[in-house]
This record gives sequence, C-alpha cells and structure tokens, in this order.
Amino acid sequence: MSTQKQQTVAVVGTGVIGAGWITRFLAQGFDVIATDPVDGAEAQMRKKVKQAWPYMEQRGLAAGASMERLSFTNNLQEAVQNVCLIQENVPEREELKRKVLAEIDKHADTDAIIASSTSGITPSVLQQNCSNPERVIVAHPFHPVYLLPLVEIVGGTATSQESISQAEAIYKKVEMKPLLIEREIEGHVADRLMEALWREALHLVNDGVATTEEVDAAITYGAGLRWAQMGPFLTFHLAGGEQGMRHMLHQFGPALKLPWTKLEAPELTYELKERVIEGCETSAGNHSVEELEAKRNEFLVRLLDLVEEYWPEPQSIMGNKKELSNG
Amino acid sequence: MSTQKQQTVAVVGTGVIGAGWITRFLAQGFDVIATDPVDGAEAQMRKKVKQAWPYMEQRGLAAGASMERLSFTNNLQEAVQNVCLIQENVPEREELKRKVLAEIDKHADTDAIIASSTSGITPSVLQQNCSNPERVIVAHPFHPVYLLPLVEIVGGTATSQESISQAEAIYKKVEMKPLLIEREIEGHVADRLMEALWREALHLVNDGVATTEEVDAAITYGAGLRWAQMGPFLTFHLAGGEQGMRHMLHQFGPALKLPWTKLEAPELTYELKERVIEGCETSAGNHSVEELEAKRNEFLVRLLDLVEEYWPEPQSIMGNKKELSNG
Repeated sequence: MSTQKQQTVAVVGTGVIGAGWITRFLAQGFDVIATDPVDGAEAQMRKKVKQAWPYMEQRGLAAGASMERLSFTNNLQEAVQNVCLIQENVPEREELKRKVLAEIDKHADTDAIIASSTSGITPSVLQQNCSNPERVIVAHPFHPVYLLPLVEIVGGTATSQESISQAEAIYKKVEMKPLLIEREIEGHVADRLMEALWREALHLVNDGVATTEEVDAAITYGAGLRWAQMGPFLTFHLAGGEQGMRHMLHQFGPALKLPWTKLEAPELTYELKERVIEGCETSAGNHSVEELEAKRNEFLVRLLDLVEEYWPEPQSIMGNKKELSNG
Repeated sequence: MSTQKQQTVAVVGTGVIGAGWITRFLAQGFDVIATDPVDGAEAQMRKKVKQAWPYMEQRGLAAGASMERLSFTNNLQEAVQNVCLIQENVPEREELKRKVLAEIDKHADTDAIIASSTSGITPSVLQQNCSNPERVIVAHPFHPVYLLPLVEIVGGTATSQESISQAEAIYKKVEMKPLLIEREIEGHVADRLMEALWREALHLVNDGVATTEEVDAAITYGAGLRWAQMGPFLTFHLAGGEQGMRHMLHQFGPALKLPWTKLEAPELTYELKERVIEGCETSAGNHSVEELEAKRNEFLVRLLDLVEEYWPEPQSIMGNKKELSNG
C-alpha cells in the first residue's frame, strides 16, 4: 500500500458522527475524502469541522494537518478508491447500511478496511452482501468523535484477524483507544452500559421520583466525577478497603439481589465472583488500594477545580440546577 | 441554638463513610464528636482522616479548620448531645440501624437533625422507633465523601419540612450539593442509576462479552469523560443537534425498545416524552445546543489533558488496560 494511501481515508455519510471522524482524521494529518448524497451536506459538514477545529488546535495538530486536506464528492464510487479505510456513517437502518456497505465493497480496493460506525447492528449482518467481507468491521465511536478516544472494534463471522489488526493500527494512529470486542452483540459494550443507565433514568422520571435535572445532577456531582478516571469495577475495588473487590462482593453481593432497579442481576456464581475479583486485581497490578486511592484523590482534586471553572456558567445555564436543593 | 452547637456535629460509626464525613466537617471548620463501638475504631478512623487531610488542604480549608477539633468517645449517649446534626453510618442492616437511630433519638437534643447515610433503607422505615421522628432523615453521600459533593436528602412520612431545610443548610455549609428527593425509594436516585450500569456490567462479564478491564475502559475512554460535566439527559440533548432532546427522542426513541440490555424500558408515552424534553430545555435555559457544545468542548479538552497526566501511571497500574487493544 502506498504511503499516500495509508494516509488517506474516505468518510461516507457526513452528519454529526461523520463530521466528527473527518475532524479527527484531518487533525491527525490524514487526507480525507468525504461523500454524502444529501443536498447541502458538504456545507453543513464543513461548518461542523470548522467549529471543532480550534479544539483540535488546542489538543495539538499532527505535522501537516490541515482542513485543506479535505475533499468532498457526490460520487461514492470515486470516494472509496485509493484509501486505506472507509468509515461508513449513514442512518442507523439495517437495509440501508447493508446496501451502502455492499456498494462501498464493490468499489473499494480489496486491501482497504470498511468500517461501520453502527451502534446497534452486528458486523455479521452488515457484511452479508459484500464480496470481500473479511475486511468489513464495526468501529463504533463516541460523540464528540474528535475528542472522545474510545472506539469499539468488532469483527463478524467473515472478518479476518488481519483486518482487525489493520483497523486497530489505523485508529491508534489517530490517537484513539481501540477496544477489541470478542463477541458480537447489539449495542456492543459501552452502549449497553449507557443504555442501562439511561433506561433507569427514564424510569425515575416516568415514576415521578426525579426530574431530568435531578437525574443529571445525581450523576455529575457524584459518580460522574469518578467515571472520567475509573470504571465501575475499579471504583468498587477501591471502595472495598484493603481487600478490594473481594471484600466488596462478599459484603455487598447480596444487595445486588434487591429489586432496586428494574434490571435483573445475574446469579452471583463462584465463577462470576472470581472473574470479577481477578479482573480487578489484574487492573490494580502490584498497587495497593491505598496507592490507587491517592492517585484518585489527586485526580479528583484537580477535576473538581476544573469542573468548578465550568460550573458557574453551566449552573446558570442549567436553570434550577443551581437551585437544585430548592426543587 | 448556640453558635457552638451550630458548628458541632456527631458522627456515629467511623468506617470509610463515617471517616469521610468527619474529614469533610473538620475541613469546613466544624467540631466533630465521633463514636464507634468497634475495638480500634478510633485509631483506624484517625488514620483515614489524616490520609485525606492533604487533599482537604489542597481544596482549601475553612477558617479555623483543624484535625484537633475532632474528639472520640465510646459513649454514644454523650456523643450525640449539644450538636446540630448526628450523622449515622453503622452497617447497612435494617434492625441495627433502627436500633441505633432510636438510641440516638433518645439522647440527642430535640432540635438536632438525625441523618442516616443509608443507601438502601427508606427514612420512613428508619424513623419508626424514634420519639421525635420529624427530625430523622436520610442524607446519603458518595465515596469519597470528603471530595464528592453530592448528598441525597430524603424525608420519611414523619419528617418535617423544617428538618429538611435545616439539614440542607448544614450540608451546603460543608460545600455539598444537596439533592432533595421527593419520593422515598430504595437506592434513592444516584444508586439506582449506578446499579443499573453495574448490573449490566456484571451481565457483560458473566456472558463473556467483555472483561472487567474492558468494561472499565468502555466507560473511562468514552461516556465517563462526559459524565463529569453532564448527566445522561443533557448529554443526549447535545447529541440531538439544534432540536436537542426533541429530535433525539423522535429519532432514537424506538431504539429504546430494542432488547440490548436486560432492563425493560418504560413505555415512551407522550407525557414521558414531554417531561423529558421540557426538562432538557429548562436545563439548557436560553442557550443553544451550539453554545452548550462549545462549553463542553472547552471542558473536555482540559479534562483530557488532566486525565492524560494521570493515565500514564494508572495505565501501567492497570495491567492490560495499556494493552487493551491487544486483548
């Protein structure tokens, strides 16, 4: 593959997610060819890229990175040639995605990766109409794509291991954190977690327990401050004292059975407990809970300062969030 | 109430949560009387307070704040007199909590607030054996209590509105964000949200879809970065383009019905939709989604810098998190 081709990607579908990808690739010094059949799509997309660009400058542009290296065409067939990766972001409808991916597959070089940004459709379904399905994957990003580093990479039954590795290398080049997901499930991993929280949030609002503002405050003033640094497992590991997750599951495991949420918990079998405990111990490495807590606290102190700098305005923006306690 | 009494609280039960409360009250210039029947509890607690103190200094101590203003007694009856608030943090067992709260209620001044840190027991249940139940509330904090500002305040059927207001004022004095919850439910609000995510996380690990490290990475590199600033509702409001949540529910509402998680979503009735949309519009105030996005981006740019400062070590700490993409 030529050096030029290795530095060029195509983005198919230039809405919020597509424009996010374009911004990220451009900022990392890639050439980008964008395509979208919708009237006025190019202007809308260029506006979005321009709006996001100052943040890319603040984060630091790669050598040679420029908005000038973005071209737009209405011709899908042309757009997807001579690129190392085609990122598809058309609306989330299975039949549409399958049709567009088959079209991309027909015209793209056989050594190019075809990646769908889908959150809810599995790659085995998406690759069905492709002649070269081994290079079709899901690469699911998070909004705003130009700032959040997570990308979930999932292969279908026909996807090759080489394609996964090739895709992983490209996303690492654009400063992302690829999470390789072994099993195809709708929603992959991150969206399932977010959806679980989101559905419970809807129940709380629906049952009149809390308003949307209160639900948001319950996150941003509490667990949300921790989640920027540590996920739920490591968080609980730290909450368990010196014995970490082992103590936690022992002491609070039974509480998992309480019908707090409308989500059923899995049976806490010996195997599941051990898997969770070992995972947390691996994450913690040789570091004691005490050392991890010190890191967390240093981080939280600085995060609180940062959040306070941005709260005064959001608070007045957020209407009764400021007056939360009077609500 | 004397000025001295207004500046003095009692903390009953001095484990992780109790010690967190003690640290917060001391740092905000309160006198604290601590009590715990467990052997060695005082030494353990003083160690925890000492460890947390440097973070309190970084955050900024109130005038006169000092660890010297902490006293310890084995005598519950003595501990709870002449204070404006008694914060109870004994183990999470209903009969034990009810017994301890009744004992506190018997000896505390009648104008003192009695607050339980319980996450799972409702105040109406807790206040049943008290002679002055009108001043018994739940005030549920988040770990680490000395850094996270959220506290959920819930009254029981016998709790007076005055007590709620009185408690709210005290928690505001110690730089907390009181969230007044109208309806008593187990888990209040924040824990229900966290539990929903936590249960889904356990399912993902149980089903072999992801390891605990991968679940944690799926949060910290993605949504976790947003949740420090914005909760799920305002996040979706921003993801919905200029029409915000209204567009979001229109476009993605049906996807809520997909069986991604094992949690049932509520019926998206007209009433629920309107409640959600109006809540988001209130939160957004007069600010366009575009203005909110700019704020979010400025925040995220700085948060990413901050997280990167703390990631290099946690990454090596976190074992295969660094090698995530090879997992």
